[in-house]
Amino acid sequence: MARIALTARFQQAITPNALRSYLAEFISTFFFVFAVVGSMMSSRKLMPDAESDPASLVMVAVANAFALSSAVYIAANVSGGHINPAVTFGMAVGGHISVPNAICYWISQMVASVMACLLLRVTIVGQHVPTYGITEEMTGFGASVLEGVLTFGLVYTVYAAGDPRNGALGGIGPLAVGFMAGANVLATGPFSGGSMNPACAFGSAVVAGSFRNQAVYWVGPLIGGAVAGLLYDNVVYPTQSSPDPLTGISLTGISG
Amino acid sequence: MARIALTARFQQAITPNALRSYLAEFISTFFFVFAVVGSMMSSRKLMPDAESDPASLVMVAVANAFALSSAVYIAANVSGGHINPAVTFGMAVGGHISVPNAICYWISQMVASVMACLLLRVTIVGQHVPTYGITEEMTGFGASVLEGVLTFGLVYTVYAAGDPRNGALGGIGPLAVGFMAGANVLATGPFSGGSMNPACAFGSAVVAGSFRNQAVYWVGPLIGGAVAGLLYDNVVYPTQSSPDPLTGISLTGISG
Amino acid sequence: MARIALTARFQQAITPNALRSYLAEFISTFFFVFAVVGSMMSSRKLMPDAESDPASLVMVAVANAFALSSAVYIAANVSGGHINPAVTFGMAVGGHISVPNAICYWISQMVASVMACLLLRVTIVGQHVPTYGITEEMTGFGASVLEGVLTFGLVYTVYAAGDPRNGALGGIGPLAVGFMAGANVLATGPFSGGSMNPACAFGSAVVAGSFRNQAVYWVGPLIGGAVAGLLYDNVVYPTQSSPDPLTGISLTGISG
Amino acid sequence: MARIALTARFQQAITPNALRSYLAEFISTFFFVFAVVGSMMSSRKLMPDAESDPASLVMVAVANAFALSSAVYIAANVSGGHINPAVTFGMAVGGHISVPNAICYWISQMVASVMACLLLRVTIVGQHVPTYGITEEMTGFGASVLEGVLTFGLVYTVYAAGDPRNGALGGIGPLAVGFMAGANVLATGPFSGGSMNPACAFGSAVVAGSFRNQAVYWVGPLIGGAVAGLLYDNVVYPTQSSPDPLTGISLTGISG
Repeated sequence: MARIALTARFQQAITPNALRSYLAEFISTFFFVFAVVGSMMSSRKLMPDAESDPASLVMVAVANAFALSSAVYIAANVSGGHINPAVTFGMAVGGHISVPNAICYWISQMVASVMACLLLRVTIVGQHVPTYGITEEMTGFGASVLEGVLTFGLVYTVYAAGDPRNGALGGIGPLAVGFMAGANVLATGPFSGGSMNPACAFGSAVVAGSFRNQAVYWVGPLIGGAVAGLLYDNVVYPTQSSPDPLTGISLTGISG
Repeated sequence: MARIALTARFQQAITPNALRSYLAEFISTFFFVFAVVGSMMSSRKLMPDAESDPASLVMVAVANAFALSSAVYIAANVSGGHINPAVTFGMAVGGHISVPNAICYWISQMVASVMACLLLRVTIVGQHVPTYGITEEMTGFGASVLEGVLTFGLVYTVYAAGDPRNGALGGIGPLAVGFMAGANVLATGPFSGGSMNPACAFGSAVVAGSFRNQAVYWVGPLIGGAVAGLLYDNVVYPTQSSPDPLTGISLTGISG
Repeated sequence: MARIALTARFQQAITPNALRSYLAEFISTFFFVFAVVGSMMSSRKLMPDAESDPASLVMVAVANAFALSSAVYIAANVSGGHINPAVTFGMAVGGHISVPNAICYWISQMVASVMACLLLRVTIVGQHVPTYGITEEMTGFGASVLEGVLTFGLVYTVYAAGDPRNGALGGIGPLAVGFMAGANVLATGPFSGGSMNPACAFGSAVVAGSFRNQAVYWVGPLIGGAVAGLLYDNVVYPTQSSPDPLTGISLTGISG
Repeated sequence: MARIALTARFQQAITPNALRSYLAEFISTFFFVFAVVGSMMSSRKLMPDAESDPASLVMVAVANAFALSSAVYIAANVSGGHINPAVTFGMAVGGHISVPNAICYWISQMVASVMACLLLRVTIVGQHVPTYGITEEMTGFGASVLEGVLTFGLVYTVYAAGDPRNGALGGIGPLAVGFMAGANVLATGPFSGGSMNPACAFGSAVVAGSFRNQAVYWVGPLIGGAVAGLLYDNVVYPTQSSPDPLTGISLTGISG
């Protein structure tokens, strides 16, 4: 019986609907990473000393907010609009997506991020792909805590945006998610980088060939995302009926 | 009879739903204050002389708008999305929330603000937490008037956003609230600080250890918030049916 | 018979609903003008030579977009959310508001604008209230044409936002109006000022005591607004049923 | 029979509804191009060396986002809100608009763009109309690939926004489209220009009299737009019922 359930779980990870959701995640993550990393490269092109300019941070933060809003929007009805391994992890911990599906989401997101950074590197000659880094004012542990808290806020917003009990407010969910990301980048950009997205940090690190501080962008966000999901589902807004993760992909991300 | 009503009022302040709404206020206020104070610290990190740079003000204003929109959104269906002692005060004056509940809201908001500023102080070594201040071009009384007028606008928008008679417009209420805050920061940031939120001013003052001008950020906003609530309910858009503050927490803030 | 109709028209201008709509216009216009003129003063405080700085223009444009979105939102269900004499003029030409009502709207808007500029002048010592002006690269006639075209776009957007046939799109109408204003300010701010709002130009001129170029901000916008209303109603999206301007204030502005 | 169908197709391109949709495309494209090209001219007026300033790119990107959101909004229910020959091409390839209609959309868009640039040129004396250009760090082929990828993202978002299966999310479609454009401009502005819109590039080139690199802004976007439409319709979110392109203009763009 357990084996049958396991087989069923893996089989549902390759249904046409599941494959479509991986493609939707790929497309959305590609454009999100493209905008975020591209805006960093734009700001360096415009001002080589961009790291010490407020207008450059506004650029990156607005790119985060706009691109994440749109990316969540276009994937919401197909894949739930995760765009982020930490969101997928939080959804898997909460039981809203099965583990095999979550693994395929992660692969889609990571490949999309690498491809987006590769496209930037190939078409824009003479500039390196930037990676996320932490300022000397912070310890690696502090940066990890900060990224974890930020990701908590992001995944909590994704949970709220995907809650069908939101009624009329459901319609602006993707904007709330994107705006939360943009605000967090403005608050922490010059300190921990304000990534909140392991896929984005991973893609730029692969293409730049530097994995320094990479753990910061995985440990904090994954823990923060899992805590956010558990807190929302069990404490803040407990549900009576739990969704069955075996009946197709549950689009709890946004679509409700 | 009066004693029974009083007991009932205090008992409803510790029902599970009430406790959940305090937690929701805590989470939303935490992320709002984190973004606002964090963006001030970011701008000082990028440009030590940030007080005289328009791009820094854009940073702080956009952080206000984005973070408040998201914070109101994620708390709307649980606590009404106040995030601000002046909003809670305006709601209490209008009878939309009982006094014991309002006091617990205040405590949640204030503790959340202190915690957010503490996190910033602990993780970001070598930078002080900034406090709100008024420019030498203004008197304390003038700043208080200005903050009061700004808060009037904010609380009035919260009332309009929470009005169920709004129909199709109800969905974008959190954005209207956040955008009003962002616009007000752009208008008054370099003069009175553009706080509009006593909790935010209080948290940064506690962590920085400086309560200079603190009264400015309490007197004006509380008066402005109360006037806005009374004006909206009684003059601009009078209601026929008054909500009963004893039947659970009335989510008049946003959720309608 | 004609005299009776005239009397009825004037009487409906002082019904309680009409008085409430004037108050709503007053509040919304006050906060819109406060944010726009205040953001100009902020940018001059931060950078005395603000006229030659892109970040200052971003400040003013974002203040326009955010403040107009919120101002339209909070007045939409009460007064229709005009906030602008040119919008009211366009609505009157299209028959969506009676002439006596329109005149009272104008008075509310103008008084609100003067009050907002006065508040800024009184509380912020040592700075003059800025007025709209045109650059030396332009003629007065060119600036008037430009402002007229901008106002055409704004009033056309107000008409579209207030159209009940918009269905699901009706909800974001105030944002579309605010974003159109913000985009127009970015395009023309350093040339003609990008006012699009005679009340805003009037209020700052009264308080600053300088009416230079004032005609530019009245002639163009009023003509542009009227043409937009006539074009939308009669050519782009003709209606079958005309609203009766005598049965109370028709809230065609936004509320649909 | 084939000839009858052909005649019917051409006849439906001049029905009153069709003519109204061309006018709506004209108005929306006019204001979009006006804001985008105008914001470039504003930034050059404020800072002659604007090409190397992050705040100027924020200006242009925000103008793109705001103006496209509003322009799509006001045309959505009349013409579907294309505003962009690449979107119209993607819609025609997907069978959502007939070829004669698409040709008339193109003509409207191109004439509107030229008119908008002419207005800027005539009213603003002493400044040239800027054209899109590619940086020396890129090849023409690379820029074309980049513009094609950006346009893929934009047209894909337009398809998602116009999908009636979106439910509650349908309401914010125009914002998602505008934000995608704004994010893409932030990512690629200093490299390939971030046009994504052949009409916009064409209009500024006609008025400036320089068609250098013009092919970059046509080849990539048209291919990207067509691929996006085919992928969305056939792979990501296949439809069961195909719309009949002969029964009037199918408003699949946004209005759903």
